[in-house]
Parts: sequence; C-alpha cells; structure tokens
Amino acid sequence: MQTYILQNKARFMEELFGLLRIPSVSAQEVHKGDMGRCAQALVDLLMQAGASSAAVYPTSGHPVVFGQKIIDPSAPTVLVYGHYDVQPPEPLEKWRTDPFEPVILPDPNTGEEAIYARGANDDKGQLFMHIKAFEYLLQSGKLRHNVKFIFEGEEEIGSPSLPAWVQANKEMLAADVILVSDTTMISEKVPSINCGMRGLAYLELTVTGPNKDLHSGHYGGAIANPIQVLSEMIASLLDADGRVAIPGFYDEVVELSAADRAMLSRAPFDLDEYKAFLDIAEVRGEEGYSTLERTGIRPCLDVCGIWGGYTGQGAKTVLPSTAHAKISMRLVPNQKSEVITELLAAHLRKIAPDTVKVDIQLHEGGDGFLIPITSPAYQAAAKAMQEVYGIEPVPSRGGGSIPVLAQMQKILGIDPLLMGFGLERDTIHSPNESYLLSQFYAGLRSIALFYQYY
Amino acid sequence: MQTYILQNKARFMEELFGLLRIPSVSAQEVHKGDMGRCAQALVDLLMQAGASSAAVYPTSGHPVVFGQKIIDPSAPTVLVYGHYDVQPPEPLEKWRTDPFEPVILPDPNTGEEAIYARGANDDKGQLFMHIKAFEYLLQSGKLRHNVKFIFEGEEEIGSPSLPAWVQANKEMLAADVILVSDTTMISEKVPSINCGMRGLAYLELTVTGPNKDLHSGHYGGAIANPIQVLSEMIASLLDADGRVAIPGFYDEVVELSAADRAMLSRAPFDLDEYKAFLDIAEVRGEEGYSTLERTGIRPCLDVCGIWGGYTGQGAKTVLPSTAHAKISMRLVPNQKSEVITELLAAHLRKIAPDTVKVDIQLHEGGDGFLIPITSPAYQAAAKAMQEVYGIEPVPSRGGGSIPVLAQMQKILGIDPLLMGFGLERDTIHSPNESYLLSQFYAGLRSIALFYQYY
Repeated sequence: MQTYILQNKARFMEELFGLLRIPSVSAQEVHKGDMGRCAQALVDLLMQAGASSAAVYPTSGHPVVFGQKIIDPSAPTVLVYGHYDVQPPEPLEKWRTDPFEPVILPDPNTGEEAIYARGANDDKGQLFMHIKAFEYLLQSGKLRHNVKFIFEGEEEIGSPSLPAWVQANKEMLAADVILVSDTTMISEKVPSINCGMRGLAYLELTVTGPNKDLHSGHYGGAIANPIQVLSEMIASLLDADGRVAIPGFYDEVVELSAADRAMLSRAPFDLDEYKAFLDIAEVRGEEGYSTLERTGIRPCLDVCGIWGGYTGQGAKTVLPSTAHAKISMRLVPNQKSEVITELLAAHLRKIAPDTVKVDIQLHEGGDGFLIPITSPAYQAAAKAMQEVYGIEPVPSRGGGSIPVLAQMQKILGIDPLLMGFGLERDTIHSPNESYLLSQFYAGLRSIALFYQYY
Repeated sequence: MQTYILQNKARFMEELFGLLRIPSVSAQEVHKGDMGRCAQALVDLLMQAGASSAAVYPTSGHPVVFGQKIIDPSAPTVLVYGHYDVQPPEPLEKWRTDPFEPVILPDPNTGEEAIYARGANDDKGQLFMHIKAFEYLLQSGKLRHNVKFIFEGEEEIGSPSLPAWVQANKEMLAADVILVSDTTMISEKVPSINCGMRGLAYLELTVTGPNKDLHSGHYGGAIANPIQVLSEMIASLLDADGRVAIPGFYDEVVELSAADRAMLSRAPFDLDEYKAFLDIAEVRGEEGYSTLERTGIRPCLDVCGIWGGYTGQGAKTVLPSTAHAKISMRLVPNQKSEVITELLAAHLRKIAPDTVKVDIQLHEGGDGFLIPITSPAYQAAAKAMQEVYGIEPVPSRGGGSIPVLAQMQKILGIDPLLMGFGLERDTIHSPNESYLLSQFYAGLRSIALFYQYY
C-alpha cells in the first residue's frame, strides 16, 4: 500500500482538492446548485475508482450518491457511509485562508503538514480515504468484499431526507456493516474507536415583545425587552449544578455502571492541556462527572446562536421587537430526540412570561447509539489500527452526533462501525478546519487493512 | 403664515426631500461621505433662507453646521439646535418603502398624510421647520430676534465631538435660549412640552469562552458556553421587582415629591390603548411606578442588541467562542452618565464567572436634565402652541435622551427649550419612520408664533 500511496499522492490531492473547492453548504439555500455539482463529482470519483455503477439519486432535499462494486453475491458486504455537505464557513473573517480554496500548510504550532479547507476533515477528507482504499484494493487484486457507498448531502442539517430514502432502497443497501469515518480519535498517540455517539435535538426560539422596534428612551423601563426575556429564559435552562433544568430531561438517561465508567476513564486525558488548548481558566459542566464523561455519557444543552436588536457598529438605542436563539441538546441512550425536543418546546412555552409571545421552530435531530466492541467489525478495525499505529486503540464515546446512523441501524438491521481519523486540532465546524496529512494516510492504510481482517 | 405655507408648500417638500435622500447614518463608517454632503446641503438651505453666514465646521468626528442672522446685537438671541445624522435604517426588510427615498403616503390606520423616510421626523423633518419659520419671519419683515443655528452630525452616536466644539466656540454661540425640536408630544389632541429628559449610558460587552468556535458535540456539556454566560449575566441585571440590580445604581436618583408626581400624572394615558398599539398582553417595569413614570422619572436598563454563534439559516451545531451585547441605561437627574457607566462596567467584570473573559467597550452617554416651566421661553412656547392647537400644552417628561443638551446647558449657561412635534406613531429609530404633514405645519406655525411671544 505504501508504494501505491507514493505513486499516487499527487493525484489523490488533486482529486480531493477538486471536491473541497465545491462550497456544498447544505444549510444555505444559495448553495443548492453546489450540492448537485458535488454529488456528481463523487459519482465521477467512484466510477474512476472502479465502481461498477454509481449515480446521483434525488430526494426531497439534497441528493444522495450511491455506488457499488459487487464481486460475489455470497461475499460479505461493507456499506460505506459518508456525507459531502459541509458546515457553513462563517465567521469568514476568522479564516486564515479561503475556506473553499484548499491548501497544504504546516500547522502553526507543530509544523506538521495539513490540508486547510472547510470539509478537509468533515467529511470530504474522511470519505475520500474510503474511495481511495477501495481503489487500491481493486487495483491490487485484493478486494474480497462487496463494497457499497452511500454519501448524503444533509448530515450537517440533520439528514431530513435520508431515512425515507434508505427505507425505500433497503434491498439495494443490504450489507453486513456500515463503515463510517466521520469522527475523531483521542490523539495521534492514543488511537481510539468510537463505540457510541450522542443524539441531537435542536430548535429555534423567537421571543416577540412589541410589534415593532422601538426607541429605547421612549419605552425603556415600561415594557418587556425581548432580549432580556430571552436571556432570562436561557439562563434558567441550566441549574447551579450544571444540570439541564427541564423537568423530565434526565428521566430516560441510562446511568453507566461503575465498571463501564472505569473502562471509559482509561482514555488518557489531561485537564491542564485541555484548558490550555481552549485558553480557558476553568471548565464548567454537570456536577459529579469528569470532562470526558460530560461529553461522552451525559446529555447537555447549548445555545448555538443568539441574535436580536442592533448588532452593527456604534451605539444604536433600540428596544427591539424580537430576539432569537438556536438551542441544541446532545442526548445519550435512551433519550429519544423527538421526545426531548418536544419537552424543551413545551417547557419554553410554559416559562415564557405573558409580556411576550414565543414562536418555536423545530429542526432535525436524531437519537444516540452504542456499538458492541465484541463485534467482528470492531475487532477487525482494532487489529488494523493497531498495525498502523503500533498501539491497541481504546474504545471511546464521541460527544458528537451522526443522528442518521441510529436510524440506518434500525432500518437496515446492521451496526455502524466508526473508524474516525480526525483530531481535536482539526477544528471541524470552526474556522481553519484542517486535516493532518499523516492522519489522512494512516486512515487510508487502516481502512485497507480493515478489509483484510474483516 | 397660512398664506405663506400655501404658496410655498411644494418647494418646502422638495427641499426637505433633498435632505432626506442623503443617507447620513452617523454610526456607519460607509456613510462618512454622506455626512459631509448633508452638512453642505444644510448650509445651502440656511443661506437660501436668508442667513447672513453659514458654514461647515470640521470636528474630530462628523462636521458641525453653524449659521446665523444678527439683526441687532441688543436683541434677544435664539440658538436653534438640531441634528442632521440619522439612525441606521436596519432592519431594511421591515421597511415598506426605501428609507432614503421619501414619499408622502396616507397612514395605514388613520389615512392622514405623512412623510415616510429615515429622518422624516428625527431630526431632519423637525429641524427643517426651524429653517422655514426663520425664512418666513425674515421674508415677512417680522424677525425681531437674532437667530443662530447649530446642527450636529453625531447626535445618534452620543455627540462625541460637539461639547469640545461648543466649548471652543462659546462666544459665537452666545444666546438666551437653546430651541430644540427633537422630541415628541403626548398626542395631537394633547400637545405637550418636554420639561426634562433622561440621560444615557451605553456600553458593549463581549464574553469570550474558548479561543475558537467549537463543535458543540465534542465540547458541549464540558465547558462554559459564552452565550449561556452572557444570558445569565443579563438576566441578573434586573431583579424580580423590575429594578436595576447593580449596587449603587439608585444612589443619586432624585425621588419626586407627591405633588410633582401628581402634576405629571395629569398627562392623559390609556394603558389599554398603549398595549394595543404595541400588541403586548402586559407591560413590565419597576414596581410602584406608573408606565409614564417608568419612562419619565425613573432610570432603566435595556439590552439594545445581542449576538453570538451561528445566526444564519438552518441548524449549525457550534459552541461559539464569543457572545456580545449592547447595553444602554436611561438615567434621571442626578445620575451622572460617566459614574453609572463605570458602575455597570465594574459590576459586569465582578459577576463574570472565571470560565470566561469579558471585554467592555464604552460608548458615549450623557446626563439628563430638567427645564423650569416658569421660564419666559417655556411660557412663550406654551402660548404659541395653545394658539395653534387650541389647548394649553401640558408639561411632560420625555424618556429619551439628547445627552449633549445637558452639556451645552452647562457650557453656555443657558436652558434648552424642547418644543417637539413628533408623535409615538412616527416610530423614529424603527422601520417606516414617518412624520405627519399636519404636525409638520402645526410645528412650523408654533415656532413662528414662539418668536412672536418670546
């Protein structure tokens, strides 16, 4: 494989950069055309890599790409999942380079070479490793599995269209494992495999006070300011112990056994390094749990965006008509995303004072899930990564969410396997997203070896 | 005067519309050139109206316009103050017409004709009445006073440059009264004269959590979210009784006597109409005070803007690095703007938890002031308005702020007189700002009569 990488390195980067140049931002209407272009680019890449068929499938939202190579109907089948949509690049002023003009640059701290672009890691860079591992296996006559690829264009907006599409194409998608690279590992020195992810619930809250923006001098002090009311509502959502203060929120949360907590605590973690990386003096979270537990096994609530009134330059004196917040919750097994979303919505309606009106818009969410580490796929992945990294990977719990995987698991009746090669340093979803070249090639080799051991 | 109005109506509108078409938004850097253009347009209007001199005076910020007509050094002198800068027009999508393309349209509710444009009332429409009243008096040989005009371009951003300019040009500005039309009256049926205005304190607060935007799944639940912290800080600034919860905030507030409160309560006020006008179910304010008292004689705190994280379309999952708020306070005699601003800044630094950093940027403010209703100028204004409206005007307290007037009062040693002809329906500082033609002409006649009785 090393030889193959050396011979094809330049072409790999050229192909990946072509993909990264397409601003496939699923959340923004203006990029609708780019979504189609990106889907077609993936079909081309799959066909070039040796797929026997690949096509763009329309959905009610952004299209799905599906391609496959069936070598023997009786051989085991790997279904590779990835997503070609990316997070919005904003705030643009914080990027050091153009988010949609990929470049290879040394990391400002370590000097290691990385690809800088929106999607460099999440998930174009990671799904691309799978196409190239497949190409290598096929070219070198080593492919022993049927391989299917499903790439969606709506992961970053909660995959609203995929479950129905998967349901309608169940037979075409039949496989033995869903192989996914869309997560991180603990560090380059501590490879890990995700054995669970959190679910997601998300809604947008609008608080309306007066029916128009008002002069804050003429009305200030006499009527409720919607920014004030929104702030009070948000403040009340977390209690003094850092717990989410929505009645019933923790009702279905599975409490881990002491043994399970001990196993997860094997993952190395340095609180001082963590604080230094983020430049914070103190962490904050639920009482009684460690930082890794807070992100791995405990649910939480975060406001992802807030806006209202005058946000431009200078000192406009206005008492605004409305204020808005985007509120997300990360869920753990067995919290149901729909139930929790409705719980928050009902709670917000209940706590809103009668000086304002509230309007709630629900966004897509999804349930969390767990993966058994005893499965053949997990064991094959662990063996592959041990060979590449020289260390046995540890099982970990990712705090993020790929809500659609829980649904695919249910519809198709097969478990996902999360071999993620991202690192925290990659700052996915943030400005200056990047992906270390060393991780890209280690991932490529690990994936090829996974097929060998599976 | 009626004949003069009838003969010159079309020209008045043409001249005023020319002024309104210039987007002189002092808060926005991009309009720097428009500020100069607007100042020059005012010089031209003053000269056309008959001023013996008028010029644009540079300052460290936007320029000042000064013009005058001295008819007799021993005659009383009126100094007319106004401002040619306007509030930002945002949010633009809420305007029914272009904010900088004035039109005369019937009021959607009453059918009365009004001029719609940013600045139609505040303050271009109101200052223009003074130029035309002066023109009329001069043309008709009735001018018995020396008249000086000072128009500034920074009122909406707190007049940072004017006090120094006034100090430097004290002698040129010498007068007996500062005449201002930049406020509202209670209603068309209840003319009123402002006998006091609130002061203003304003600052911008930035809360920084992690040093970069983060994936809310990977970090959510483990570190402080700056939007959450900002919301908690804002929520804590008002207590359950609607009082500003900053230690020392009320220390210097002058409590009005029962007699003063009774006099102010003569102003008619219908709470149901007020709530219907704003489309709110309930008002909110400081316990123990009426709505008019809450805006007239009591100080308050309002968040004029808030922003942080992702505010675009869709459901981006981000734990942002920073969150921001613009916080204003309206002050009453004897609260000092600088003292109160520093009080809030120190309080915010104190209550910020050690999970975040705070940064505070101070904006311009100013003190409130009171005007004795026994003064000759007040009496002349009351007589003039009684003649035009057929009703004796009531003294009122405006909730807004023209901070620079308190400073001019101090520097020049003369009282301002606030003859404002705006109405609440004009929605100044908001989309669809307008000015009733009936009020424009009633104001013009009242001002001309003021000179007769002063």
